[in-house]
Amino acid sequence: MMGDDSSIVQAARVSRGTGTKGRRQDEELIRYLMRQRHTSPFEMCEIKLHVRVPMDCWRQWIRHRTANVNEYSTRYSVAIEAMASTQPDHWRRQAKGNRQGSEGSLDIETGRMLSEGEQNIQQACRRVYEERLKAGVAREQARKDLPLSTYTEAYWKIDLHNLLHFLELRMAPNAQYEIRQYANVIGYEIVSKWVPITWQAFLDYRLNAVQFSRIEIELLKDLCAGRVQSALDGMVKMEWLKEKKGVLAPNLEAQEFGAKLETLGLQKPWER
Amino acid sequence: MMGDDSSIVQAARVSRGTGTKGRRQDEELIRYLMRQRHTSPFEMCEIKLHVRVPMDCWRQWIRHRTANVNEYSTRYSVAIEAMASTQPDHWRRQAKGNRQGSEGSLDIETGRMLSEGEQNIQQACRRVYEERLKAGVAREQARKDLPLSTYTEAYWKIDLHNLLHFLELRMAPNAQYEIRQYANVIGYEIVSKWVPITWQAFLDYRLNAVQFSRIEIELLKDLCAGRVQSALDGMVKMEWLKEKKGVLAPNLEAQEFGAKLETLGLQKPWER
Amino acid sequence: MMGDDSSIVQAARVSRGTGTKGRRQDEELIRYLMRQRHTSPFEMCEIKLHVRVPMDCWRQWIRHRTANVNEYSTRYSVAIEAMASTQPDHWRRQAKGNRQGSEGSLDIETGRMLSEGEQNIQQACRRVYEERLKAGVAREQARKDLPLSTYTEAYWKIDLHNLLHFLELRMAPNAQYEIRQYANVIGYEIVSKWVPITWQAFLDYRLNAVQFSRIEIELLKDLCAGRVQSALDGMVKMEWLKEKKGVLAPNLEAQEFGAKLETLGLQKPWER
Amino acid sequence: MMGDDSSIVQAARVSRGTGTKGRRQDEELIRYLMRQRHTSPFEMCEIKLHVRVPMDCWRQWIRHRTANVNEYSTRYSVAIEAMASTQPDHWRRQAKGNRQGSEGSLDIETGRMLSEGEQNIQQACRRVYEERLKAGVAREQARKDLPLSTYTEAYWKIDLHNLLHFLELRMAPNAQYEIRQYANVIGYEIVSKWVPITWQAFLDYRLNAVQFSRIEIELLKDLCAGRVQSALDGMVKMEWLKEKKGVLAPNLEAQEFGAKLETLGLQKPWER
Repeated sequence: MMGDDSSIVQAARVSRGTGTKGRRQDEELIRYLMRQRHTSPFEMCEIKLHVRVPMDCWRQWIRHRTANVNEYSTRYSVAIEAMASTQPDHWRRQAKGNRQGSEGSLDIETGRMLSEGEQNIQQACRRVYEERLKAGVAREQARKDLPLSTYTEAYWKIDLHNLLHFLELRMAPNAQYEIRQYANVIGYEIVSKWVPITWQAFLDYRLNAVQFSRIEIELLKDLCAGRVQSALDGMVKMEWLKEKKGVLAPNLEAQEFGAKLETLGLQKPWER
Repeated sequence: MMGDDSSIVQAARVSRGTGTKGRRQDEELIRYLMRQRHTSPFEMCEIKLHVRVPMDCWRQWIRHRTANVNEYSTRYSVAIEAMASTQPDHWRRQAKGNRQGSEGSLDIETGRMLSEGEQNIQQACRRVYEERLKAGVAREQARKDLPLSTYTEAYWKIDLHNLLHFLELRMAPNAQYEIRQYANVIGYEIVSKWVPITWQAFLDYRLNAVQFSRIEIELLKDLCAGRVQSALDGMVKMEWLKEKKGVLAPNLEAQEFGAKLETLGLQKPWER
Repeated sequence: MMGDDSSIVQAARVSRGTGTKGRRQDEELIRYLMRQRHTSPFEMCEIKLHVRVPMDCWRQWIRHRTANVNEYSTRYSVAIEAMASTQPDHWRRQAKGNRQGSEGSLDIETGRMLSEGEQNIQQACRRVYEERLKAGVAREQARKDLPLSTYTEAYWKIDLHNLLHFLELRMAPNAQYEIRQYANVIGYEIVSKWVPITWQAFLDYRLNAVQFSRIEIELLKDLCAGRVQSALDGMVKMEWLKEKKGVLAPNLEAQEFGAKLETLGLQKPWER
Repeated sequence: MMGDDSSIVQAARVSRGTGTKGRRQDEELIRYLMRQRHTSPFEMCEIKLHVRVPMDCWRQWIRHRTANVNEYSTRYSVAIEAMASTQPDHWRRQAKGNRQGSEGSLDIETGRMLSEGEQNIQQACRRVYEERLKAGVAREQARKDLPLSTYTEAYWKIDLHNLLHFLELRMAPNAQYEIRQYANVIGYEIVSKWVPITWQAFLDYRLNAVQFSRIEIELLKDLCAGRVQSALDGMVKMEWLKEKKGVLAPNLEAQEFGAKLETLGLQKPWER
């Protein structure tokens, strides 16, 4: 790691032409920077992680372009002999509402069958890989049918600003379970100890912040003033709500708005 | 595509405060920019490609960070039902000298056996994938044991400067065969027609240029002046050459130097 | 320009494996992408602008790193003979609350004096520059004392996602007046016509969205439930409010919260 | 600083699946990586510099986009009261051949006059700046006519690969004198001590390497084989040489080739 909370303060103050001050004022400054999205001071901290990740998950990871990467080469070396396996109670059901998500688990019986099938196919793939190597096939070609569950390793180096952006996206509930586990460990176990003031500010102003669109602000204004019918009329007009069999059914955007109302302890107007 | 050869000229001339000139002068300017590595004018051209690539190859492709990418999502949709297959005479032998390369082909009998094994394992993987989907497993999880040979699709958008950098690396003889085929098509079929002046300059000053290190320049100076023994002594001292059973054996760097001497029509001094 | 609203849809759908649909569904998709911060499809559009900007302003502009730039070179050519001048009624007063802002204008008398002084110093600087050139000084050195108000020109090429990020920051009320004028023209005159659906989504979900921090959400929850005293107590405890001469004075963060309450039509609790 | 020579080795070996080895083998590996342009391991080292630079020079510096920057803000604070001044014997003459360069110095008499003029205009600019501040003008506006010679300060953080690229361009003879001085200090005083093996490899394979274009290789081949006339004919045909008053005058590209021949101890064929 390079830098810590104090490096952020130092960098922000170069733009201000003054030196470091007391702990209290430093904390206020960091929180101000996070709140106002003055991101460049957070780029002054850098961290390098040695990670071991299934290639499937790595495919998502590597989409974050602002990082330095050195990955284990299966052109140069024999592929790591380890694949991600799934416990019988860990097979997740395809989500209904969200096409790219999962919800709940399959029953344990099905799970057992799937886990067994997983082990078989992984062993078969490895056997084919090793047969190829034995026959003299180049490593770069032999690997072509390894399963995506095969582990890879990498050094991954990134600055704190871009790391927080990674965490914001990958700790989110709609991130895939597997990468979310990595993100949670990086966030709660590593970053929180490395830059504790920044981490708290991140939780307060980014991860747990709630954003209301221009339209939601208008609706919320109505609701705060008790103009419930006006809000409902607006939502119907925008087709956020559609009458189905006598009840108002919310579309995706209305459901998102409803979830935000809940965090405010407010009732969804279409459920009154 | 956005821009062409003339956009490069236009951009270079903004830095010069003058407008476009005749074809001849434009060509001279582009060649000058390429030669002097004034790269920013080449960034004024942009191209978007729709590519279909096996994931194995895509893993290398995506390492080029300065591009815009939208990839087919196997979280959202069922994975493409196509995998890269290998003809019996296309199984490449592991290279001896270069740990990360291949050289020559395996015999056709072995090739036939390997191609059959390939087909079997790919079908088995797909079957497992589809069984999982049928059992209700979320797509994001079901895909975990798809082979790396599975095709993906993407829109890939990049500026000309970064594209030429990609091509320089991926058209090189030490790039993996599979990605080299894509690079060759992009270069010779697309870029050469899109920006013909730039393409010729790229071939002359980048792809087919030869670089001599400070040390090689010293050795070449000796050789040009007929001081062969002096060059040999230098190479022995640096351990580029080692006596093995009465002959001088070149190390990797000496072999690279030897290849450059060949392009100059010069004999390798240790082979005289 | 390269691409438009439909390119965004096309790119998003590659990740989904389906083609373009009707106008209504395309609009919904673009708005969904903007709302959920799926940014990569917006990178499929690219724009190139030819801009003329005072160097002072360009210094801020160029801090946005994800763009391609070719700037007029005052090493190669004589500097552009134009400097940004200020009308007598356009001299802005230093802001009190915000150290890096301005508020209101100076009186016209002072303004006249300052505008005259501006013209004099600019002419003097240009005279010195031209004397140096006449004496044979290299352009790269002669330019060293040109004022920051000297105009420069550049081709500036950027993808739509990064352009929107630029606009979000530079159209904000706390951006400097000069660059804000450029941002407004780019946004309202150019982008709004180029990608009208995206522009509207940007206004709704980004530019005019309001974000509440975790802490503000807690306070708002209290206020919505009528627990005004609880909210006030919380704010005092966090030192957002401090008693000064019998009244509760809000700190910077409380003032920001107060402004958000206003957009909701709610009273600031410390002003009741 | 983060990392050193051994971090590069470690990163390269993750891609190879093996740990660190002896000093000799580490050196060989680093030199191999530099030679083969395997750049990613060099990104594992990071350095942060606190620099004080005239804005004129900073304008060139900041064009290198792959760095993290926090600059002194003249919106927030009063501008640094220091400007780059020029000794009477340091005024450089405009180059004849190279439109964007300088060569030699002006005579000391002219130099004295220019240095005096420089001091006067800088003082006048500062006076105007301070009068504006005194009249209450916002700092962000008052600064608009500060000369480009005004010093700024910044924290500048960059990885080693991108730093070496910066140094390659800015230590080059055609880089402007002012930034070249900074580059030389960073290179020879800082990087050389931080990562000595990498620095030596950089000098050997990058900074002091010589590249020959495809065309130059052809010409050199002729010259090495003693086919001088063939080389000359080729150069005339390509218009690298033009007869002027009975002698062959080389164009810019031929002059560049001539300089390379000199490093090889070879005569320029058109001067025989």
